[in-house]
Amino acid sequence: MQSLKSDALTREELRLIHAWWRAANYLSVGQIYLFDNPLLKEPLTLKHVKPRLLGHWGTTPGLNFIYAHLNRVIKRDSLSVLYIAGPGHGGPGLVACNYLEGTYSEVYPNITEDCAGMKRLFKQFSFPGGIPSHVAPETPGSIHEGGELGYALSHAFGAAFDNPDLIVACVIGDGEAETGPLATGWHGNKFLNPARDGVVLPILHLNGYKIANPCVLARISHDELESLMKGYGYTPYFVEGSDPEKMHQQMAETLDLVVAEIKSIKAEVRNGSTRRPLWPMIVLRSPKGWTGPKEVDGKKTEDYWRSHQVPMGDMAHPGHVKILEDWLRSYKPEELFDGDGRLVEELRELSPTGELRMSANPHANGGVLLRDLRLPDFRDYAVPVTSPGAGNAESTREMGRFLRDVMKLNLDSANFRLFSPDENNSNRWQDALEVTNRTWMAEKYDYDDHLACDGRVMEMLSEHQCQGWLEGYLLTGRHGFFSCYEAFIHIIDSMFNQHAKWLKVCNQIPWRRSVASLNYLLSSHVWRQDHNGFSHQDPGFIDHVVNKKAEVIRVYLPPDANCLLSVTDHCLRSRNYINVVVAGKQPAPQWLTMDEAVKHCTAGIGIWEWASNDKGYEPDVVMACCGDVPTLETLAAVDLLRRHLPDLKVRVVNVVNLMKLQSDREHPHGLTDAEFDVLFTRDKPVIFAFHGYPWLIHRLTYRRTNHNNLHVRGYKEEGTTTTPFDMCVLNQIDRFHLFADVIDRLPQLGSKAAYAKQAIRDRLLDHKSWIEEHGEDHPDIVGWRWSGTPASVARSSTEGDNV
Amino acid sequence: MQSLKSDALTREELRLIHAWWRAANYLSVGQIYLFDNPLLKEPLTLKHVKPRLLGHWGTTPGLNFIYAHLNRVIKRDSLSVLYIAGPGHGGPGLVACNYLEGTYSEVYPNITEDCAGMKRLFKQFSFPGGIPSHVAPETPGSIHEGGELGYALSHAFGAAFDNPDLIVACVIGDGEAETGPLATGWHGNKFLNPARDGVVLPILHLNGYKIANPCVLARISHDELESLMKGYGYTPYFVEGSDPEKMHQQMAETLDLVVAEIKSIKAEVRNGSTRRPLWPMIVLRSPKGWTGPKEVDGKKTEDYWRSHQVPMGDMAHPGHVKILEDWLRSYKPEELFDGDGRLVEELRELSPTGELRMSANPHANGGVLLRDLRLPDFRDYAVPVTSPGAGNAESTREMGRFLRDVMKLNLDSANFRLFSPDENNSNRWQDALEVTNRTWMAEKYDYDDHLACDGRVMEMLSEHQCQGWLEGYLLTGRHGFFSCYEAFIHIIDSMFNQHAKWLKVCNQIPWRRSVASLNYLLSSHVWRQDHNGFSHQDPGFIDHVVNKKAEVIRVYLPPDANCLLSVTDHCLRSRNYINVVVAGKQPAPQWLTMDEAVKHCTAGIGIWEWASNDKGYEPDVVMACCGDVPTLETLAAVDLLRRHLPDLKVRVVNVVNLMKLQSDREHPHGLTDAEFDVLFTRDKPVIFAFHGYPWLIHRLTYRRTNHNNLHVRGYKEEGTTTTPFDMCVLNQIDRFHLFADVIDRLPQLGSKAAYAKQAIRDRLLDHKSWIEEHGEDHPDIVGWRWSGTPASVARSSTEGDNV
Repeated sequence: MQSLKSDALTREELRLIHAWWRAANYLSVGQIYLFDNPLLKEPLTLKHVKPRLLGHWGTTPGLNFIYAHLNRVIKRDSLSVLYIAGPGHGGPGLVACNYLEGTYSEVYPNITEDCAGMKRLFKQFSFPGGIPSHVAPETPGSIHEGGELGYALSHAFGAAFDNPDLIVACVIGDGEAETGPLATGWHGNKFLNPARDGVVLPILHLNGYKIANPCVLARISHDELESLMKGYGYTPYFVEGSDPEKMHQQMAETLDLVVAEIKSIKAEVRNGSTRRPLWPMIVLRSPKGWTGPKEVDGKKTEDYWRSHQVPMGDMAHPGHVKILEDWLRSYKPEELFDGDGRLVEELRELSPTGELRMSANPHANGGVLLRDLRLPDFRDYAVPVTSPGAGNAESTREMGRFLRDVMKLNLDSANFRLFSPDENNSNRWQDALEVTNRTWMAEKYDYDDHLACDGRVMEMLSEHQCQGWLEGYLLTGRHGFFSCYEAFIHIIDSMFNQHAKWLKVCNQIPWRRSVASLNYLLSSHVWRQDHNGFSHQDPGFIDHVVNKKAEVIRVYLPPDANCLLSVTDHCLRSRNYINVVVAGKQPAPQWLTMDEAVKHCTAGIGIWEWASNDKGYEPDVVMACCGDVPTLETLAAVDLLRRHLPDLKVRVVNVVNLMKLQSDREHPHGLTDAEFDVLFTRDKPVIFAFHGYPWLIHRLTYRRTNHNNLHVRGYKEEGTTTTPFDMCVLNQIDRFHLFADVIDRLPQLGSKAAYAKQAIRDRLLDHKSWIEEHGEDHPDIVGWRWSGTPASVARSSTEGDNV
Repeated sequence: MQSLKSDALTREELRLIHAWWRAANYLSVGQIYLFDNPLLKEPLTLKHVKPRLLGHWGTTPGLNFIYAHLNRVIKRDSLSVLYIAGPGHGGPGLVACNYLEGTYSEVYPNITEDCAGMKRLFKQFSFPGGIPSHVAPETPGSIHEGGELGYALSHAFGAAFDNPDLIVACVIGDGEAETGPLATGWHGNKFLNPARDGVVLPILHLNGYKIANPCVLARISHDELESLMKGYGYTPYFVEGSDPEKMHQQMAETLDLVVAEIKSIKAEVRNGSTRRPLWPMIVLRSPKGWTGPKEVDGKKTEDYWRSHQVPMGDMAHPGHVKILEDWLRSYKPEELFDGDGRLVEELRELSPTGELRMSANPHANGGVLLRDLRLPDFRDYAVPVTSPGAGNAESTREMGRFLRDVMKLNLDSANFRLFSPDENNSNRWQDALEVTNRTWMAEKYDYDDHLACDGRVMEMLSEHQCQGWLEGYLLTGRHGFFSCYEAFIHIIDSMFNQHAKWLKVCNQIPWRRSVASLNYLLSSHVWRQDHNGFSHQDPGFIDHVVNKKAEVIRVYLPPDANCLLSVTDHCLRSRNYINVVVAGKQPAPQWLTMDEAVKHCTAGIGIWEWASNDKGYEPDVVMACCGDVPTLETLAAVDLLRRHLPDLKVRVVNVVNLMKLQSDREHPHGLTDAEFDVLFTRDKPVIFAFHGYPWLIHRLTYRRTNHNNLHVRGYKEEGTTTTPFDMCVLNQIDRFHLFADVIDRLPQLGSKAAYAKQAIRDRLLDHKSWIEEHGEDHPDIVGWRWSGTPASVARSSTEGDNV
């Protein structure tokens, strides 16, 4: 493809770039192995070696090689480049490069650019109280932890969106390339607009081996690999070999070509092109553990899986210290660092300066660039509620109206996007398409629906891609919201884990600035999967979320549209959290006026006085609810209780902010025990209808005074393709079961209650029969409305009602 | 690529195959819409239409088209073909085809092949008490639910492994093709051996649209798509168009070519080739909602996203019933079915018969083919344990020895494989490579390590691929074990969900035979991620698992190698479960002899008498433990208690089978409350050291009598790259914290205990300092061994010990 001239670098340039690379490699090996004697001023002995050898050498020299060459073009052309190290195990490499650029010492003043600092640099690596062995939040210039593989390209595209002057150099390990998320990550180019967005430059680093196996993409033919990259829509450039001199020339020439091509694409765009360009990408095929020991104990090591982690683990083994010393001295440290351990001047000059250093690129510490969103007043989107239950609305559609105007107000700032795996409209955010479009750089037809090169709604049928894009977008200082079917958000459980861990660690790093929260709307939820059935029913993401650190986790289950609007506004203003919002999209009764909703959401939990009749008294029973469908069924059950047992004092408690249930000792939002007791009493039965798995409520409340009287209904994996009400019945969270639950827990109510329970059971059976015959819910269920009847009036109407 | 002659079918063949397709489409539309009047014997009115219209039309005609054409070659060549419907939303299509083949009526005798049966067929679809709208366990011939997208190809390869005479036709929707798992699923061809395995024939079905968006692969150039498929290692054949007649000819000719190519590859293999063939695949580009209404209410419907679900939702809308009637009559049902509703004879003859019908392929009901594994006696692999804690072993390595011989004994049966994302050796199963190799069909070098075309260890760096392969392998009647790093098993959380749901539903379907359990070994666990650190620490998969139905879930945390062997044997014999086994790979003390281990694992939970000193008494405190590291720390804490407080009566309870903790009302393995009370007392403090998140123990035990005295230590998201013992300290699950927990809960112990606690706290601080200075654990920690000293002896040695 490219013609190799092997003279891209002058002899002097070659000498210098090779020396810089040797310095990076030396510092990398030093971090993995050395406890002392950092400059090898004395002969190496076992006592200079760390007692526990941890780290990954294999990928590191390749990462350093790329870093050195990127620096050359950055410095020459004043490029703004973000470096994403997909093979994040190569932590020592990135730390070494950062140190060579001076950034590391700026950020961590104790790691000075001298012999003492180098010793500390070496010691801290993978050492208790030191730094992790991977590229991590602690690593300047990074937005991507390489612990769990698969997300490098998605993060890269997320970072590039709306950053037209940024080039994201994304190194992809050939191990990572086998993962599913990475395999679809390539298609991000169908969503990247060269006029508006930055550039993603994928660098597929084939060093041939994973922990113990060869890599698939390193073991297919050149033609197949080239086809694959072209099939993904890229123009591949190959840099292949092991001889450093030739490789430096190849890489320099290739980068020159690639940078020229990028500039040409960008220039063409300025002239008005809207075609999807075939972006360049690089295949770098170099030996695993390049420049390391060729053999150890007679076993192939360089260019083999044995280089993956620490090439020689047992340093007490005869000859191993010698191998290490020879290896380290092969980089000729005395040429690279002066007697004080400071990088020599001619190599210092190779690095870019200031924010052009990849380790100091401000996009990698996105909070520095973060601007608040301009937000309309969410109260202006209020759904009118003349009395509780009077209105009907699709909560997420109302949210979509608000998001439409958030989008509109921030179009100029170009810092807000919506993400969804083909579910934006299904989840009822279609109003956003009134002010923007779906991003689409692939082919378009004239009858297409809201597709445009400059859309800000990102839809690809890959939860991984949506999550990765959003993470990359947020970590570089922007804002977004991810809407997803509730059941399928589990697809990114592990990505959520990694982001939550990233945020937790960032909270402990002073120089990391706060970023916008990662916001989820989970809709099309478990209770309304009428036609998709059992496979689409899983409310367990919340369970997964609450395992993570309380300081980064927020979970909201607004019962109606006005509460959802209030919560949405709150999420968009928050920082450094992961906010999970669960809300339905189907038409449903509305309970609170906007003023009431704001008050309720601010408290996060509260007694709904208008639905309770215990005013001034201790209630006989507390009916608690959390989630929109459980709230509906609870109120319908309360209505039944009022009609059948008008003297019963019922308190209704609604939970919006799930973490209120946990103790204030466990979560910053948690209620104190005293506050909890005030709401839930110390000894009265509590019937709790919960959106998710019922045991989650127990897990959050097991230390509360009244826990033994807590009876929770929720989803218990009973479901199929059926009617909405039947879904409730299958899981015994419907109004009739809730009614019976109250009677069962209040034996003192006596025979009248028992009679009412029997009547209710008959009603339930009638409804089940109706459903099975007609295929839809009985009109009494669909048509039920909160009567608003005070208990005294309800009492007189008990006879002859049709529940 | 192919030259199209358009005469693959004679006129008569064309007429017949088109008629069969029309019949399948007619039955599909009928299922979505009709409540009555199934044969349109009277004019269609609103009352014949279902009240709730649910289902997905868009993908269905394409699925039927493929089915009809596969049947032609199956019948002609007596092929054994399994049909995987990636676009599983096309449930009505597969059900229609099954019904046309007669299988449906055989399996569900009430759905007869007559007018009444057709009416029931239509009514049951997406109807309460009926069948789901997706391809599901209820669908004969299916091993793949299409609810959550992404796994069609992995399932297909899993089914094809070790089934040399099987062709798995795998239809991939262009929506699904955007997911990560599917994008890497293509690479299964690097692991499929044409001599030993069957064939996977991918059929990429481009119908252009998802719910609301176009599909990426339908909007790239022909060249790019062709490159992509070639890059994935396939020879693509294109069938593109919308005119049925031309499309039938194209598809027939293409299938003829493809079948010939498959036969040629297979023939070449018989002649000894071991090259990786370029398997054929088909790109079928046909309109979404093909043959449906072109327009509804003036809006484009056929060949557009509006066909995705129900093209006309509101049937009361003027004209919609007429559109539906015209649509149905366009298939000319009167030519397809006789007056009784029975498929006419000439179309009946198009279907294969017996097990050649894809709907009756026995591989799709794998339990029919399942043979028990030949198992060596796991007791023969016992680790000698002369006294508790005396030996040292790597538990999973011992398991690997057992699995090696399981592999060996079943090599002839070719029904057992091990799966791992490049972690087989890291998780210490390398001994299996003594009797088999890693499967590898890509390029090999002579220095490669245990790679072979006929290996039975499946390693690709994709948890999705491993999980999908294993599911496909199990559901077609074979056995396997999946080893994975504990933290990263979350990558397949949602796949686990779907498999658990599949098993739950199968348990309710009489004709579905039991299959082997899906077995996980989770190793490289949270407590021993010394060099990978925080990103690799997550024990929460168990939390995720226990949300699913108790009857399909089993969770084991064996404390040592002999227990792990016993549990492994049990898992390999079990059926229809998902077994999660968590065990460490690092050298660790061994506690139980094999006889003791068998007894302990059979009980699942029990008092370790040898570690307790409460014989004949009620203990003062119960020290409970679950998981290998927590067991070690608990015993070390008990050792400290014996030395410092020799009069304290300590009971040690170890839990292997986690579900024992739950009530017998919740889980079939659960202890009764009485049994629980016997172990844990009714009122004594219980200090519980747990492998995972501590609240899981509370969630399982919150109804137990003594729950209020239960104090659980576990992982609470505190971690980094540090020493093993420091990890315990960071999460306060170490021996010193457990010791202090006991003192804190027994204030009656008085000043001696308080003094001991202070001494222990000092020890802890000394150890922390040691770690931070030396980078490794203090020799006292590493070297600690259970003394076995009875309490009375321990008492006299209390002075001067070095804890």
